Amino acid sequence: MRKLLASLLIASLPAAAALSEQDIQTAAKLRDQALQSSQAYDLVESLVVEVGPRLAGSDNNKKAEAWAINKLKSLGFDKVYTEAVTIPTWTRGTIHAEIEAPYRQHLVISALGGSVGTDENGINAEVAFFDSIDDLKAADAKAVKGKIVFINKRMVRAQDGFQYGTTVAGRSKGAVEAAKLGAKAVLIRSVGTSPHRFAHTGVMRYQEGVARIPAAAVSVPDADLIEAMVKRGQPVRLHLELSAEPGPDTTVHNVIAEVTGSEKPDEVVVISGHLDSWDEGQGAIDDGAGVAIAAAAGKLIKDLPQRPKRTIRVIFYAAEEIGLYGGYAYAEQHQGKSLAKHVLAAESDFGAGRIYRLDTRFGPEGEPLRQALAKVLMPIGVDLGNNQAGGGPDVSMLPAQGVPVVSLRQDGTYYFDYHHTPDDTLNKIKPDELAQNVAAWVAMAYLAAQNDAPLRPIPEGNFGE
Amino acid sequence: MRKLLASLLIASLPAAAALSEQDIQTAAKLRDQALQSSQAYDLVESLVVEVGPRLAGSDNNKKAEAWAINKLKSLGFDKVYTEAVTIPTWTRGTIHAEIEAPYRQHLVISALGGSVGTDENGINAEVAFFDSIDDLKAADAKAVKGKIVFINKRMVRAQDGFQYGTTVAGRSKGAVEAAKLGAKAVLIRSVGTSPHRFAHTGVMRYQEGVARIPAAAVSVPDADLIEAMVKRGQPVRLHLELSAEPGPDTTVHNVIAEVTGSEKPDEVVVISGHLDSWDEGQGAIDDGAGVAIAAAAGKLIKDLPQRPKRTIRVIFYAAEEIGLYGGYAYAEQHQGKSLAKHVLAAESDFGAGRIYRLDTRFGPEGEPLRQALAKVLMPIGVDLGNNQAGGGPDVSMLPAQGVPVVSLRQDGTYYFDYHHTPDDTLNKIKPDELAQNVAAWVAMAYLAAQNDAPLRPIPEGNFGE
Repeated sequence: MRKLLASLLIASLPAAAALSEQDIQTAAKLRDQALQSSQAYDLVESLVVEVGPRLAGSDNNKKAEAWAINKLKSLGFDKVYTEAVTIPTWTRGTIHAEIEAPYRQHLVISALGGSVGTDENGINAEVAFFDSIDDLKAADAKAVKGKIVFINKRMVRAQDGFQYGTTVAGRSKGAVEAAKLGAKAVLIRSVGTSPHRFAHTGVMRYQEGVARIPAAAVSVPDADLIEAMVKRGQPVRLHLELSAEPGPDTTVHNVIAEVTGSEKPDEVVVISGHLDSWDEGQGAIDDGAGVAIAAAAGKLIKDLPQRPKRTIRVIFYAAEEIGLYGGYAYAEQHQGKSLAKHVLAAESDFGAGRIYRLDTRFGPEGEPLRQALAKVLMPIGVDLGNNQAGGGPDVSMLPAQGVPVVSLRQDGTYYFDYHHTPDDTLNKIKPDELAQNVAAWVAMAYLAAQNDAPLRPIPEGNFGE
Repeated sequence: MRKLLASLLIASLPAAAALSEQDIQTAAKLRDQALQSSQAYDLVESLVVEVGPRLAGSDNNKKAEAWAINKLKSLGFDKVYTEAVTIPTWTRGTIHAEIEAPYRQHLVISALGGSVGTDENGINAEVAFFDSIDDLKAADAKAVKGKIVFINKRMVRAQDGFQYGTTVAGRSKGAVEAAKLGAKAVLIRSVGTSPHRFAHTGVMRYQEGVARIPAAAVSVPDADLIEAMVKRGQPVRLHLELSAEPGPDTTVHNVIAEVTGSEKPDEVVVISGHLDSWDEGQGAIDDGAGVAIAAAAGKLIKDLPQRPKRTIRVIFYAAEEIGLYGGYAYAEQHQGKSLAKHVLAAESDFGAGRIYRLDTRFGPEGEPLRQALAKVLMPIGVDLGNNQAGGGPDVSMLPAQGVPVVSLRQDGTYYFDYHHTPDDTLNKIKPDELAQNVAAWVAMAYLAAQNDAPLRPIPEGNFGE
């Protein structure tokens, strides 16, 4: 049924100078091949089982790079190479926290990425409880000084992860705001939607001139417990011991594979994910899925009887989690002539749920490509969205350099249940959903590589995502 | 609508000599009061927040007993007292495990209750992998000697938790069977249905004359990881460090509260749960819910304008998790004349899901009570089941002494997602579902206390559950 529908739609597509009927037919064929293939699942399974978690700068990060180079070579890409990225390092160490009063209880907790540790004796202090970072900012220093700030901001499920954006400031900026008021440490309710007892890690920031205090997240059930004690009206005292510490800078690598274009090899379509992950889970949905989707899409195009007109560049970005280091390094290293030849860039970094929408950021002459993409993707449940795409974290800095981007938006209803937790494991990926992702990506990448109409100049303005 | 239906049904109930129309109306009223009450939820919230986990024999077990005595007194029961129970103790200590080869990865793991520890250096050994304990029993010692046995038996969700029974032998007897063949330790896939990264603890046994080897469970995603490596065909080596150790015997207590019967105070209806829990979760669904349901049901009967004919005895059993110690102690202490006066006994120990079925174990003259129970409970979704009830873990030894029992069967579809894991937390209890439980229990207990027809002699034979 789906195949029939697809054929009908393709037959009725208006002629577009930018793309031939043959291009559209080939994109549809690639899409259908992807739906039948387990390539992406096999790749992420291999990465999870043979490497596992791969914190930026860790030994496992090195293993992951070696895995990626070997795997991309064995898939037969025309070129496989790396580009160096300098990053800061950080060691998680150990963490132990409990409520000491009014009722002694153990807490499930995770240090935030980049946090400093406590001294050996840890920190014992009363809780200063806030519903949000805005409430903290508005607080009197007397209510905070010498205490452990607790930010209890809730995050509710949404298909597009909307509340991640409205909640994550507590994680990224909580330590700075708490320290400005004299707090000894900051703890937050996990920035996630899991009702299960996992703490969500993620990167946090310090600010020059503001004291660096330890920062950590507790699981949702543990946040509920703290809240229940606070609501009883007695002072709540916590104990926190944390041995995390920042380390020296090191070098990691963006790992890159290409299918060389047959007509305009210097014009490049970038499809990507990020290779690093947080260290407590397996890095399956964040972002093993993304690198697997990009590589599997590239491999399908490589296996065509002939090369696409333009080059397909598969990038496994380095060190996304700790601050988009791979993305910024790429943008810097390719600034100017190289980026000017980037036809399009996009990253898959929102898990492994089905894609339901395609957003773009194309100039007016990109409309035939938009329409072709809509026609080829609609049969697999992907409808055309806005023209304000951001493209994904590691390519988010490229529109400012004029590079067109697309966002193939995934259903993230459950993404923030697993994201950045120990529960980011392989069994959270549904093979058929992952295959649908590859289907969308391969069709998109192929059509972008065949499209002869300019996608530039791209519209400015806010990202719609 | 529900109330209307209930009234219609009660009106059409055939006259039963054993119970008056007034009894039935009162039971229906208690049921409807329970549906509107948050009493049970408030109780389990208090237990979870103010005590938390309460491993049998631990300091928190003592706190839980004090909490229970205070709480039951404050609820106004006619009597509150304790009965001593002697139990062995056990300290969990710390655990650390990883896969060493072919790919080094950390494992999420939990010591099984009662397990001995490793020495300081831990155990390094190759995995001997089995799909079930039956496969292990059939194995050649050569394939096991000096290795770490891994039992990968899966457990699939079911409303009645069917596969717990077919899977738990790997946990309880795995160490004995593995040690008989010379294994150094036994690890199992968690006996649970959670796809999340929690290891399920639970009690295990040793056997006189068989070496005592360490035993632990890994989470389902970690079991998948071990399985994926085993399937790659290379030897899989694990490292296990565990500091668990058995301790000296100690005394804990069954905590008991009564509503004294007005006509036959020495005839007793027992409703119960167990006060102890495993130590890694909050003991909310196992079995904070059960003690809260029993106490809330007793409290509603206590608040009636007049006492029921027979005594309602609410028991918070001690030390269920480590081997039904409270239940066995009660059966022994009350053997003979006291148990002969037990009209009926039942325990709530299957979480906090809605009750959907009532099983009984009554003699032929119990039929009017069965029918009365069916009529009063049907409007809240509880249908009559078989007459082969077991009654629940801590009363399971009472039918052998002639005591009638009932099983108010709860929907356990998700029970084994949380049971015995760190994820057994308050937010897994839905207040409306808990209230429906109290509604069924209070109606059942009241009718049993009013019923004048003998429920004995009870049928023998296998438990139907």
